[in-house]
Amino acid sequence: MKTIEWLEDRVRFIDQTKLPLEETYRETDLYTVIGDAIRSLSIRGAPLIGVAAAYGVALAALRSRQTDVQSFHDEIECAITGLASTRPTAVNLFRALERMKVVLYSNGSIDEVRQLLIQEATRIHMEDAEMCLRIGEHGAELLPDRARILTHCNTGALATGGEGTALSIITTAHRQGNSIMVYASETRPLLQGARLTTWELMNAGIPVTLITDNTAAFLMQQKKIDCVIVGADRIARNGDAANKVGTYMHAVTAKHHGIPLYVAAPSSSIDSTLEEGGKIPIEERNGSEVTEGFGRRIAPVGVDVYAPAFDVTPARLISAIITEKGIHRHPFDFR
Amino acid sequence: MKTIEWLEDRVRFIDQTKLPLEETYRETDLYTVIGDAIRSLSIRGAPLIGVAAAYGVALAALRSRQTDVQSFHDEIECAITGLASTRPTAVNLFRALERMKVVLYSNGSIDEVRQLLIQEATRIHMEDAEMCLRIGEHGAELLPDRARILTHCNTGALATGGEGTALSIITTAHRQGNSIMVYASETRPLLQGARLTTWELMNAGIPVTLITDNTAAFLMQQKKIDCVIVGADRIARNGDAANKVGTYMHAVTAKHHGIPLYVAAPSSSIDSTLEEGGKIPIEERNGSEVTEGFGRRIAPVGVDVYAPAFDVTPARLISAIITEKGIHRHPFDFR
Repeated sequence: MKTIEWLEDRVRFIDQTKLPLEETYRETDLYTVIGDAIRSLSIRGAPLIGVAAAYGVALAALRSRQTDVQSFHDEIECAITGLASTRPTAVNLFRALERMKVVLYSNGSIDEVRQLLIQEATRIHMEDAEMCLRIGEHGAELLPDRARILTHCNTGALATGGEGTALSIITTAHRQGNSIMVYASETRPLLQGARLTTWELMNAGIPVTLITDNTAAFLMQQKKIDCVIVGADRIARNGDAANKVGTYMHAVTAKHHGIPLYVAAPSSSIDSTLEEGGKIPIEERNGSEVTEGFGRRIAPVGVDVYAPAFDVTPARLISAIITEKGIHRHPFDFR
Repeated sequence: MKTIEWLEDRVRFIDQTKLPLEETYRETDLYTVIGDAIRSLSIRGAPLIGVAAAYGVALAALRSRQTDVQSFHDEIECAITGLASTRPTAVNLFRALERMKVVLYSNGSIDEVRQLLIQEATRIHMEDAEMCLRIGEHGAELLPDRARILTHCNTGALATGGEGTALSIITTAHRQGNSIMVYASETRPLLQGARLTTWELMNAGIPVTLITDNTAAFLMQQKKIDCVIVGADRIARNGDAANKVGTYMHAVTAKHHGIPLYVAAPSSSIDSTLEEGGKIPIEERNGSEVTEGFGRRIAPVGVDVYAPAFDVTPARLISAIITEKGIHRHPFDFR
């Protein structure tokens, strides 16, 4: 399974909205298809969104028929703006697009810049894969033997350009012979935990038990969870971390039970321009993702819905943050 | 809308699994149909289960063709055993069946006992309605003006023989002119919050916003919730309360934010034989309610699932318990 792949002149990606029932791949040479896939969550996960957006810029460059440099720049800038508007919370998207923009203004012919853009997108992808490996190695050191781990949402190969962030820690520990087991909280409304994390872990032969999000605290009360590991879509300078809605709930209940909570993310998820998490923009999704996400309507027509996609966990509830650079502990200060 | 009704020689009830899309009523003169309806959650809510089971016993008595008292007793005892085995956690079920059993052994002819059983079931129903009113009145005093209330699962007319427990407090406060608003957490896996609580509140003209269970803590962090009100399926002598899974999560996060949590239940939900909540039997439901509850499968085939229907909130996380007798505060001691 390759989550995303550059194929000479087009991008191939797995449609994550179809998993786990169907393993469907899509191919495109249009950056707008990449943008739509990000918006609709066919492509999701903070690091993967960054990788996909970079490939999107490369596609735009490849298809451009402009012959003068100014018009070429304008056209690609427009594609970058379009891709940047897909989702507001994950900072990796903006990071990747900034890097592509710098390359866009390299010296050279349009054709040379085109090749440089493809190279840069591929480099972002490879770097992400490398970061996943490092995160896995650093994080695996934190896990006690036979750890029973709670994770939320999906942070694996489907969420990144490599093996994952939080899930890379889990797969690395498993490879090292640690007999871990995982509780995957289903992650309403779009059920990335139920659909994607269970699928990845079952494929990897790692014991996993699915629970509803509201069962996690009860497991903690029963002393059945040793630690919580989650990803992050954006981390402020002080360590406050935005992640899939429900993470804050897990963090509060973990704290109440004295269970450590680890946040795993590439350093591209750190936004050092933000002093604290209250400044992270939180995307609100359409209420229909709550009311009709299961194939049939589950609430009265016309009901009001509040559907934030993310929440912010304050640094004081986070035991450590794991990036490719190592294990960061209090006081966090990401400059 | 009448949730359950005795119609001379049969019982009519709303099929709650069909709500809110269809308002379907079913009629039966068979106690086994009542038992199946309880098991499948067509009839649900601790107090309502008690009422329905009592009517079930009345139906069994009415249909019995026995002519000698001993055989009549045996047949009805068998029905009582069957009804008692439907669900293990709510104590109201066992309370109601005990009352019916006492009446079963009254002096008199089979026909007289039959009439006494019908009377007793109707009395249990009426008493429950009366208790709901009292709970509403007592609880409404606790609410600040313009309270923003979080509730979990469904505790309204659909869960009781009257206007509800936690929800009766809400509807009473609304009638008294308090401009309250409610956040209904959807209550996975069977979504009683999304399907039933929103429906009841919208019908009553009370502002309600639906959220996923994992969004509640984030709302508390944003200071958008003034109190949490929930029901209970069984309360131990010390005040520990079993209720729909997720209640414990709400209780821990409410405590973390200094938000009061109120438990509302008729005194028939109190089990004074149990010293503490750890002794309350917790029903585990079939994993398919998590993985395929809503028309399409949401997890890989063969995934392990842990699906408790209830959890136990320790008394120390409960600010007050409201019964028909009044507002009970620490230290709880229900003898």
